[in-house]
Amino acid sequence: MNDTPLSPDDRLGAFCPDSRAYLQGVDEGPLAGLTFAAKDIFDVKGHVTGGGNPDWKASQRAAEANAWAVEVLVGAGATMVGKTHTDELTRGILGVNAHYGTPLNPQAPGRVPGGSSSGSAAAVAGGLVDFALGSDTGGSVRIPASFCGLYGLRPTHGRIPLDGMLLQAPSYDTVGWFTRDADLFARVGSVLLESRINPARPRRLVVAEDAFEVADESVREVLEPLVERLASLIGLSGRERLAPTSLSDWAAGQRVRASSESWEVVREWIDRTNPRMSFQVAESCLAGRSLTSAEVAAALADRQEVMSRMRTLLAGDTVVCLPTAPTTAPPRSQTLSERRPLTSRIVQLTCPAGTIGAPQINLPWTEAEGLPVGLSLLGAPGSDELLIAFAREAAELLQVE
Amino acid sequence: MNDTPLSPDDRLGAFCPDSRAYLQGVDEGPLAGLTFAAKDIFDVKGHVTGGGNPDWKASQRAAEANAWAVEVLVGAGATMVGKTHTDELTRGILGVNAHYGTPLNPQAPGRVPGGSSSGSAAAVAGGLVDFALGSDTGGSVRIPASFCGLYGLRPTHGRIPLDGMLLQAPSYDTVGWFTRDADLFARVGSVLLESRINPARPRRLVVAEDAFEVADESVREVLEPLVERLASLIGLSGRERLAPTSLSDWAAGQRVRASSESWEVVREWIDRTNPRMSFQVAESCLAGRSLTSAEVAAALADRQEVMSRMRTLLAGDTVVCLPTAPTTAPPRSQTLSERRPLTSRIVQLTCPAGTIGAPQINLPWTEAEGLPVGLSLLGAPGSDELLIAFAREAAELLQVE
Repeated sequence: MNDTPLSPDDRLGAFCPDSRAYLQGVDEGPLAGLTFAAKDIFDVKGHVTGGGNPDWKASQRAAEANAWAVEVLVGAGATMVGKTHTDELTRGILGVNAHYGTPLNPQAPGRVPGGSSSGSAAAVAGGLVDFALGSDTGGSVRIPASFCGLYGLRPTHGRIPLDGMLLQAPSYDTVGWFTRDADLFARVGSVLLESRINPARPRRLVVAEDAFEVADESVREVLEPLVERLASLIGLSGRERLAPTSLSDWAAGQRVRASSESWEVVREWIDRTNPRMSFQVAESCLAGRSLTSAEVAAALADRQEVMSRMRTLLAGDTVVCLPTAPTTAPPRSQTLSERRPLTSRIVQLTCPAGTIGAPQINLPWTEAEGLPVGLSLLGAPGSDELLIAFAREAAELLQVE
Repeated sequence: MNDTPLSPDDRLGAFCPDSRAYLQGVDEGPLAGLTFAAKDIFDVKGHVTGGGNPDWKASQRAAEANAWAVEVLVGAGATMVGKTHTDELTRGILGVNAHYGTPLNPQAPGRVPGGSSSGSAAAVAGGLVDFALGSDTGGSVRIPASFCGLYGLRPTHGRIPLDGMLLQAPSYDTVGWFTRDADLFARVGSVLLESRINPARPRRLVVAEDAFEVADESVREVLEPLVERLASLIGLSGRERLAPTSLSDWAAGQRVRASSESWEVVREWIDRTNPRMSFQVAESCLAGRSLTSAEVAAALADRQEVMSRMRTLLAGDTVVCLPTAPTTAPPRSQTLSERRPLTSRIVQLTCPAGTIGAPQINLPWTEAEGLPVGLSLLGAPGSDELLIAFAREAAELLQVE
């Protein structure tokens, strides 16, 4: 147990140096003795929540209470040792922050950690804490979990309260967490979901063919054998395409829905303060502003089709397998024009769960050329415990850890 | 003569604190004994040209030579005492910089100084230097001259070399300067234009009716009597509308032309570095990027109509009178949505000269409610000396100083 602030150990650039929020866990509880960190979008009483942008931080007052998720973890015995970097205003998927730098990826030197929960993933992957809180709106837990070789869950939308958090797009925001092993993942999940994680298995396992097509061949090659090993436990129920048209159509619709909502979150602040942002984040904000109400209405209508299709597919405790990310973690030094097509591919894989509010877990069980590659299991809304329990059991049976 | 750096005196926040470029003027020359400052887009050997954006500055090396305009002024005896703030990347007309702050307007407390040559105008208006260099692409000398009560010229495009300057849109960029009085304005002009400023008068004086309609009533009310006094010297040749359709059409076209060009100046740097910018400046850059080649081609075709119309109007040493700015200097604390409509009105008045590359001088001869109001004289390309000489003579005859 580490019961002092971590500053001397932050060799990864994962922590916010000026907001070392420290909260001693209670003496007894299911997480007693463990340390954790939280992305700097979770309120900690007496500290200003920074959100990865200095002008946002300067415009905020210190929080008057802890975020719900922080409070429940401390109440379960875990000690919070600090806040971690996030992509600016959580708008990013690679872990790059123009103001505060890019945390190191301890599992992939020279590569980005993934984001926007970048510091939390780096801190867990580097062993600086036992687990960490992140958030996932469009992939911000799943992608850093995949790039850093961690367990990470985007829960069912609404399962974990968002109170005391800086939101991006409230219809899609979720609280997630990272660990290095499946057993601890379930222990933390039990606290955050306020639920027991009893042994459970999906009834059907379906391979999302179109999702695999989005991934690099090197990623597919290492994931396919894993899928077969999973199928050896419960049988494989087939291969299906998620999207009747294409995942890029689904991704485009989700971008419209999330962008328009997230513009509303920042528009008044932007108008009042003309904040400094990285070009990429300003571009992201303006993409939301430029949408017409007709475009937003059309995208909201399209959402119903995605929900209907996925509801059918996921019925009866079906779980879908897909690559969490289409590639391993990319280099830290990419240009904006190199990042854009990669981000577009990533969103094709993260959008199905985000669109329908379904849980998706990253299983950090393999690698390609020495870099982590994550496999995702996506279940019906409400199947969080099922996914976590199955991950725990499969990790043990398949001896992947 | 002030021959030491000005830092103790910079009560206006006009100077760049970290680039106190100091160049002692030669002992003898037409400007010997005078001090000047230059907007931080002019190179000074050994110093990094900052351009009002810290990430731009960080990506540049120290200049290997002085800008042409700086070199010729020092060679004429003037001593450069420092570099002054600019709107970020010269993209702004109000003098607001999200990174470095807004220089004070010594003639209008609580108001912006105008920009983008904000620090130069503030330093001259506050008496910190005798004169200062600025640049004018879309009004960046004329507007701060109007808001701060200074003489300021946008010269004929191409008259003063742009060597050693950070450019915004090379087809429209010009070097300008500010003084508090008309005589010194001509002396500096003689050096920068490499020309004698002999006494000269326009043959015709035309009031630009549609330009006056853009201005606030309070601005029109104080400018009309001035126009009559000017007309008393050379006769008034009538009132005309500049634009066959509307000045807002002209302004829209000029925005397209300048935006598309200025995007090309920054695109590679932005792609490579994902720089931090104020939201407003990122928005300005993206406006350039979003233009289609058809839109740009149409705007370039429209330019010919503006040039043809203005060439006819300005023939035979005709000078057009118009308000330099539609309002007095606005408050420092405006929101972005308050600034946008004001900026649109400003560009309607600055675009005719910018579009055709013609000279336009601000005459700081009146005020409204205690705030400076500038009258502009716009002449045919090449009439720089005529405008400067007439300003000097009229200032004396009308005893406006």
